Amino acid sequence: MARVLTPRAEDFPRWYQDLIAKAELADNGPVRGTMVIRPTAYAIWERMVSDMDSRIKAAGAENAYFPLFIPESYLKREAEHVEGFSPELAVVTHGGGKQLAEPIVVRPTSETVIGEFMAKWVDSYRDLPLLLNQWANVVRWEMRPRIFLRTSEFLWQEGHTAHASFEDAKAYTLKIHHEVYERHMRDLLAIPVVVGRKTDRERFAGATSTYTLEAMTGDGKALQMGTSHELGQNFARAFEIFFSSDSGTRELAWTTSWGTSTRMLGGLIMCHGDDNGLRLPPLLAPTQAVVTVVKTGVEDAARSLYEDLVAAGVRAKLDDRVDTAFGRRAVDAELKGIPVRVEVGPRDIAAGNVTLVRRTDGSKTPVSIGEAVGAVTAALEADQKGLYEEALSRREARTVDVATLDEALEAAASGWARIPWSAVGVEGEALANQSAISVRCLYRPDGSVPASQDEPDLIAILARSY
Amino acid sequence: MARVLTPRAEDFPRWYQDLIAKAELADNGPVRGTMVIRPTAYAIWERMVSDMDSRIKAAGAENAYFPLFIPESYLKREAEHVEGFSPELAVVTHGGGKQLAEPIVVRPTSETVIGEFMAKWVDSYRDLPLLLNQWANVVRWEMRPRIFLRTSEFLWQEGHTAHASFEDAKAYTLKIHHEVYERHMRDLLAIPVVVGRKTDRERFAGATSTYTLEAMTGDGKALQMGTSHELGQNFARAFEIFFSSDSGTRELAWTTSWGTSTRMLGGLIMCHGDDNGLRLPPLLAPTQAVVTVVKTGVEDAARSLYEDLVAAGVRAKLDDRVDTAFGRRAVDAELKGIPVRVEVGPRDIAAGNVTLVRRTDGSKTPVSIGEAVGAVTAALEADQKGLYEEALSRREARTVDVATLDEALEAAASGWARIPWSAVGVEGEALANQSAISVRCLYRPDGSVPASQDEPDLIAILARSY
Repeated sequence: MARVLTPRAEDFPRWYQDLIAKAELADNGPVRGTMVIRPTAYAIWERMVSDMDSRIKAAGAENAYFPLFIPESYLKREAEHVEGFSPELAVVTHGGGKQLAEPIVVRPTSETVIGEFMAKWVDSYRDLPLLLNQWANVVRWEMRPRIFLRTSEFLWQEGHTAHASFEDAKAYTLKIHHEVYERHMRDLLAIPVVVGRKTDRERFAGATSTYTLEAMTGDGKALQMGTSHELGQNFARAFEIFFSSDSGTRELAWTTSWGTSTRMLGGLIMCHGDDNGLRLPPLLAPTQAVVTVVKTGVEDAARSLYEDLVAAGVRAKLDDRVDTAFGRRAVDAELKGIPVRVEVGPRDIAAGNVTLVRRTDGSKTPVSIGEAVGAVTAALEADQKGLYEEALSRREARTVDVATLDEALEAAASGWARIPWSAVGVEGEALANQSAISVRCLYRPDGSVPASQDEPDLIAILARSY
Repeated sequence: MARVLTPRAEDFPRWYQDLIAKAELADNGPVRGTMVIRPTAYAIWERMVSDMDSRIKAAGAENAYFPLFIPESYLKREAEHVEGFSPELAVVTHGGGKQLAEPIVVRPTSETVIGEFMAKWVDSYRDLPLLLNQWANVVRWEMRPRIFLRTSEFLWQEGHTAHASFEDAKAYTLKIHHEVYERHMRDLLAIPVVVGRKTDRERFAGATSTYTLEAMTGDGKALQMGTSHELGQNFARAFEIFFSSDSGTRELAWTTSWGTSTRMLGGLIMCHGDDNGLRLPPLLAPTQAVVTVVKTGVEDAARSLYEDLVAAGVRAKLDDRVDTAFGRRAVDAELKGIPVRVEVGPRDIAAGNVTLVRRTDGSKTPVSIGEAVGAVTAALEADQKGLYEEALSRREARTVDVATLDEALEAAASGWARIPWSAVGVEGEALANQSAISVRCLYRPDGSVPASQDEPDLIAILARSY
């Protein structure tokens, strides 16, 4: 069979681009850096949104919607924040046929406008914590775009909360980070992530602490899958989010923000994809099983099996397009990552069998028609775990424990380096950056997230990244 | 009790504005014409989206996402379209710190960019119909903004489809209009709508037919709740959406588009609201029943009832904020339109009762605790129908059958005028427009939608509108 995609080992970024095009996941938009998310990928995104949204609501946050347009002056109120974003802004100068008196920025994130409204809505400690989330598009002008990973416009959720104390803000940030983000990625996306703290150098503009979730891609690089920030009182001060305390004093609130985006679609492809295309964790797959009519004559048997699968709660599709070559349909299902194919052919049916083809390992197993539904559901269950285990094994295999910066830089050329942070330090970090290697995160020996980069005994992950 | 809102009869627009502020539904954004949708209103919008999205998917369309930014040149390709939108555009001239070579328009709608991609994706008649839908924000600069009804940015779904024939395009447009939009509004929003055709004068820029759904507001005006358009081959020609037919010829596709937006939230308020606030149809209400602890001492009984309601599938909340005055909490629940309040007070409980308060009519009924769950579910079912019936009765009462344009203009000063279209005509329409009265739609005597405004015996609805 002719090769469908550039093999990963040959050129991983090219493989990624090929896969996105041939699996019909997305296209480049007409304005440089923007993307069109096609139905196949959007259906996956919808399932991510649904799961993430439920978890966010279970954590107590409510959804709201804030404007796309922000007065330029808002961004200037928090000095570090504007510095972080100004090279990335898209600016509207004309509206309604006229030049505007004040230029308007298309939101790169909504900290500032939400800060403004929190100040209006928060009066007393009884109004706290104020836990808001928003699903929206944001714009950050991108010089080196890559679909899903870095696009000038992307879709995301951004949580913004205000609290009465530092401790409450910190606890909520970590709750979101672990209970919402880490579990979503582990349990739905089947992606193992290292949870840690960003160094001061890598921290979000305006934050006092940034936490990250780092996944390993198929070529051994790191991908930041989501971040959560403690903003201290920086934004509260800039936007005057005050509250009267239990004892009647006027206090400044503590705020947080946290986000995940369509970048997770890129992470999904880069983590689970193989040389034949995408591989989707069954819980996330919009179509979990496709029943394929190999040749005409077995349509009834195929339809009956399809109906049994649907009745058993499997998200199944029937592919009876016999006027399209069987091989082409099989390649297409593999490209799109459908976890299980059930091939129904005349010879198999004559023997009372169908063929179960698993996307994860390409295995083809004859199964009696009566046992097909059970075999499909068992395969789906096994594959959800299997993809996670496979990704975890790869990460372990490609992570090298090292003791010196030089060793770390060498290891990070082809995988992750795990090293005592004390052996790197801020100077080593700057040096690593010169080789396009960064400190992805810091964590404690017990795996928990440190309160500062100055804690003793911290472990650092160094890697190249997307 | 002090009046909470300006009464509708005194100043309807002011009542609307008061309600939105006091029920904490939305705020004006910092950029003129934009809005902040607060959690109370956003939760209603989420339920609208969920219902509408299911119906759209059941009609066969798939969701996708197209870019916010559109090259200015795209809009110019379809002459009528650009003419319709140019005074409303927001234009980005700077990105990434530089002036852009070509100005970029923030999408006022996505016909043009979707047309561009349809041309890429459609090859043969086998690719048709191509049925796409998008949930997105769009921007149309608004000189006289009113929250939900006319805002510079709003949220909507926009469907865009391409078909092999005029007949198929027409049938699909009407399917969406009747089976998706009309049923969503009738069955979920409890809003009766008149379905008809827009006159040539009121038609969407670039369309060959525009269909509308018109609701009557509490002050007897009309509100366009959604529109569906046949675009003929106008956009297909401008964007070169060709396909090879069954017989091998090269043909131009027929396209449609259809949209509903956060404007429906405005329609909901204006249709069902009363002088005490919003009234929500139970199927749409995020909270269907609130169990209110009147005074401390009955918390256990209240919580037990609350749990029974949840177990019975009612979206219930427990309000045990006894440190806030009972009256204030009752006013707040009324403002927000929660369909049923179950008041649990010490005296009632001593008699084995609770008090059931219905938002639709303000009725207060003592109910024994054992029968409370059944009484609540019965009330919810009755209120969904009741709100629809009430709106329909008001519409009938405030619609006057007239025979001449003069009579129509008089009737439309305080309600709707129903008149033979032949008694109005294009000249009468222009005359009516001078009095801020418009032809809302045309329909046939049997209620169906005409294929052109030149059909005989058409009926016209004339009204003022929001």
